[in-house]
Amino acid sequence: MWLKTEKEVARHAFGRAYERECKKLSNKVKEMANTAKTPEDIWKLHEFLTEKRKEIDEKYDYRYSVLIYVFSTLVREGWLALDDLKGLDEDKIAKIKHTADL
Amino acid sequence: MWLKTEKEVARHAFGRAYERECKKLSNKVKEMANTAKTPEDIWKLHEFLTEKRKEIDEKYDYRYSVLIYVFSTLVREGWLALDDLKGLDEDKIAKIKHTADL
Repeated sequence: MWLKTEKEVARHAFGRAYERECKKLSNKVKEMANTAKTPEDIWKLHEFLTEKRKEIDEKYDYRYSVLIYVFSTLVREGWLALDDLKGLDEDKIAKIKHTADL
Repeated sequence: MWLKTEKEVARHAFGRAYERECKKLSNKVKEMANTAKTPEDIWKLHEFLTEKRKEIDEKYDYRYSVLIYVFSTLVREGWLALDDLKGLDEDKIAKIKHTADL
């Protein structure tokens, strides 16, 4: 069960993680584009983006039934700090930490 | 029928057109990457590359059975000049010009 205030915290944290991860992706894409010398380098950039898009689409699944698991992944990968999740109840935080192996 | 000398001209022209088209694509990719501001801009770049890759893969078909048609397309689109095809026999040049609507 997610309280209305928890949903607000969750939505905000989710959006923040997505922005952070996409910002890092964007920097990598700029770097790959700017150092590309051959057609092959451009096709590699395309393959990289295809993979990343699939990975990000699958990861950012905002359904309350899976959100604890999603947040664990985002914390483990460093896109979210536990501080970003302040406002969720203790039980949820404990589950997120446990699943994230913290 | 393609003589050995014609095959050399054809291979060279084909490669040159491919390099030119990929160079222009590469410049466009750099521009899109460097002006990207939002995640959506990165996904647009990915879609653009997916389309271009498909288009280029289909266009650059080096089979002698279709090469006249391929060269016509490359001439019409400006990736090849007729000068790049010097060394092909007159009949082939005439067909390429005709199909390219020159």
